[in-house]
Amino acid sequence: MSEDGRAKSELAGIPQYDLRILNPGAIQINVTGAFIVDEDQVDGRLTPPDTRDIALPHHHERVSHLAVDIGGSLAKIVYFTRDKNGNGGRLNFTKFETDKIDECIEYMAELLDSRKQGRETQHIMATGGGAFKYYDRLRERLGVEVSRGEEMECLIAGLDFFITQIPEEVFNYSDTNPMCFAESRPNIYPYLLVNIGSGVSMIKVTGPQNFVRIGGSSLGGGTLWGLLSLLTDANSYDEMLEMAQEGDNTQVDMMVGDVYGGDYSKIGLKATNIASSFGKVFKESAKIPHNGEKDPAEVLAKRQGLFRSQDISRSLLYAISNNIGQIAYLQAQKHQLEHIYFGGSYIRGHPKTMHTLSYAINFWSKGEKKAYFLRHEGYLGAVGAFLKQRPKEEWIAGNQ
Amino acid sequence: MSEDGRAKSELAGIPQYDLRILNPGAIQINVTGAFIVDEDQVDGRLTPPDTRDIALPHHHERVSHLAVDIGGSLAKIVYFTRDKNGNGGRLNFTKFETDKIDECIEYMAELLDSRKQGRETQHIMATGGGAFKYYDRLRERLGVEVSRGEEMECLIAGLDFFITQIPEEVFNYSDTNPMCFAESRPNIYPYLLVNIGSGVSMIKVTGPQNFVRIGGSSLGGGTLWGLLSLLTDANSYDEMLEMAQEGDNTQVDMMVGDVYGGDYSKIGLKATNIASSFGKVFKESAKIPHNGEKDPAEVLAKRQGLFRSQDISRSLLYAISNNIGQIAYLQAQKHQLEHIYFGGSYIRGHPKTMHTLSYAINFWSKGEKKAYFLRHEGYLGAVGAFLKQRPKEEWIAGNQ
Repeated sequence: MSEDGRAKSELAGIPQYDLRILNPGAIQINVTGAFIVDEDQVDGRLTPPDTRDIALPHHHERVSHLAVDIGGSLAKIVYFTRDKNGNGGRLNFTKFETDKIDECIEYMAELLDSRKQGRETQHIMATGGGAFKYYDRLRERLGVEVSRGEEMECLIAGLDFFITQIPEEVFNYSDTNPMCFAESRPNIYPYLLVNIGSGVSMIKVTGPQNFVRIGGSSLGGGTLWGLLSLLTDANSYDEMLEMAQEGDNTQVDMMVGDVYGGDYSKIGLKATNIASSFGKVFKESAKIPHNGEKDPAEVLAKRQGLFRSQDISRSLLYAISNNIGQIAYLQAQKHQLEHIYFGGSYIRGHPKTMHTLSYAINFWSKGEKKAYFLRHEGYLGAVGAFLKQRPKEEWIAGNQ
Repeated sequence: MSEDGRAKSELAGIPQYDLRILNPGAIQINVTGAFIVDEDQVDGRLTPPDTRDIALPHHHERVSHLAVDIGGSLAKIVYFTRDKNGNGGRLNFTKFETDKIDECIEYMAELLDSRKQGRETQHIMATGGGAFKYYDRLRERLGVEVSRGEEMECLIAGLDFFITQIPEEVFNYSDTNPMCFAESRPNIYPYLLVNIGSGVSMIKVTGPQNFVRIGGSSLGGGTLWGLLSLLTDANSYDEMLEMAQEGDNTQVDMMVGDVYGGDYSKIGLKATNIASSFGKVFKESAKIPHNGEKDPAEVLAKRQGLFRSQDISRSLLYAISNNIGQIAYLQAQKHQLEHIYFGGSYIRGHPKTMHTLSYAINFWSKGEKKAYFLRHEGYLGAVGAFLKQRPKEEWIAGNQ
């Protein structure tokens, strides 16, 4: 990360990007000199929050809409603000828990209100499952048109934009270089998008409008968050990730060495490989049996007291990340895709998670496939919806 | 299941099976008329316990060894007993938790003791990780030779024996016919063995001695057991499976319908598909925050009190079974294997588990691949070790 964000955009040398070429009817955003605003960066943090602004110094056209992607767990908002000094403007990113959807809608209402000028009609671009589930509520409270974008289309449009237009957005992870920015590739297709939100979707993308959902998994961010909310006293997903950072999974996982007393070299398993996630737990729990007389809650509290929240968090983070990595590899292999992008709000710049996903892809593919991450990983759908502004009729047709 | 087990073996018409052909140095077992002893069967139970004896009415040779397969969670014992009326004998199956390995060794000591006759030397065939980890303890307590069998070789030898020699052992599951016995196939290779113990191993088998471990997962029986021992007051794995049978996973899982308000038909997801396992949990848990003043145990007890143990068990059983099913399909697809056998002690005749695994294989492969189950699913390694008796030197060489 350079200290002067502005310098980077000149190096990147990206031409003006007319989204109308890719998406007929979409808005035109002038991305000349676009860069991620890094000034909020605080020392020592491996990656910045994914809500960092993207500056668009040469975009001067008025923007009359904002976009929201309402998923199972999180609602993500993208909107444009003008620079007070006339240096174009910025894309802003913010998110809410979907359970607090009314707060989210209130936030959008204030945004619309603050931008009201003359008689120009503002409107909302919405995507994600909640665009359907909360459609009526959005319209009623906001009193503006709400257009709906097909979720996968928006994800892909957003990812394509980040890959091709935003310098220092996409990166590879390694322990020695946690954020090695990816070089731009002349032809980005085909690729595999692994979108990890509450659940996981895997989408094979062969062109700007050409994609198919080839698989997925119900073991995603919602699983990690849900299980850890019952197993640790963390209050938020970010707290859980912090706990995991300090944990030692070998306290709860059964390692190959625990079973074999060493490596199982004949089949290539090391003593330090995980044989069974949480495989050590039931042996300890069995020491505190429930005999029917005791209060069940007391039994569970005692069993849980045998393990550290940090170790449990680390184990589950590993288990789910490894699993997604393996399935992603197998799908990429099956569909002959070399480049694998991880999107969604699961990772959040967490090094252990990126390490695990990268390791899994590298290990299984023997180095032939590459894992890519994004700084705005959670905002693919929202940015896609923001860019894909089209007449309402088209969207509705596209939804079916 | 027929009421008269004996009738079945005549139908099967299996010739005498000389294991020495497949495994030089192995013992000869006369399997003419072998059948699973069903008389213990109790009404209404879908599948019999996996410890049901196998009768070998025409085997009269003395058997001077017993076999044990010591895994991460369970130690499985197979031994032969003579019929008192001179009608051959039986293979007996029993298991212990590996954590109670001393009880298991004591059991073997009693078996050896009861069979002591004249000066014939008895011995132990051991396999699984514990054959290495507990090797010294076995030798010291039992005072007999302990030969060690390579785990994967034993698994395959045991499975081959069950597939080719034991009638009504291998079956396909469907909701309308939960135990549809598989027809014998002239050539059983190649196939995929998915062995689900504490963890999961996937082994591609192309011939009696020809196999390779192509993958696996740390999310297996140990994970289910471990997590549920912290989330429910069940005392045993079987209790957890019973709880799961009565649960409703939609109380804890986020369904596609919860996100979209209906189907997401464009990409083929139904409202009733699971979008995120445990995806509903954190939303409820968030209503009981931990503010730093409260006792963490109290907070967790309250959060857990929001959900039924049965629903949690069902959700986790589905999640892990689905996941194994998907990975098994992808591996089978990659290696062009049509027949998928599920072994290990995970399933235990539990219909929901077999339904989920079968459904996953059928769904993903569009009906092209088949899931097979075994009544003695947990004893593949132990039976393989029992059959693969060889001079000790050979085993030791084979271990490396």
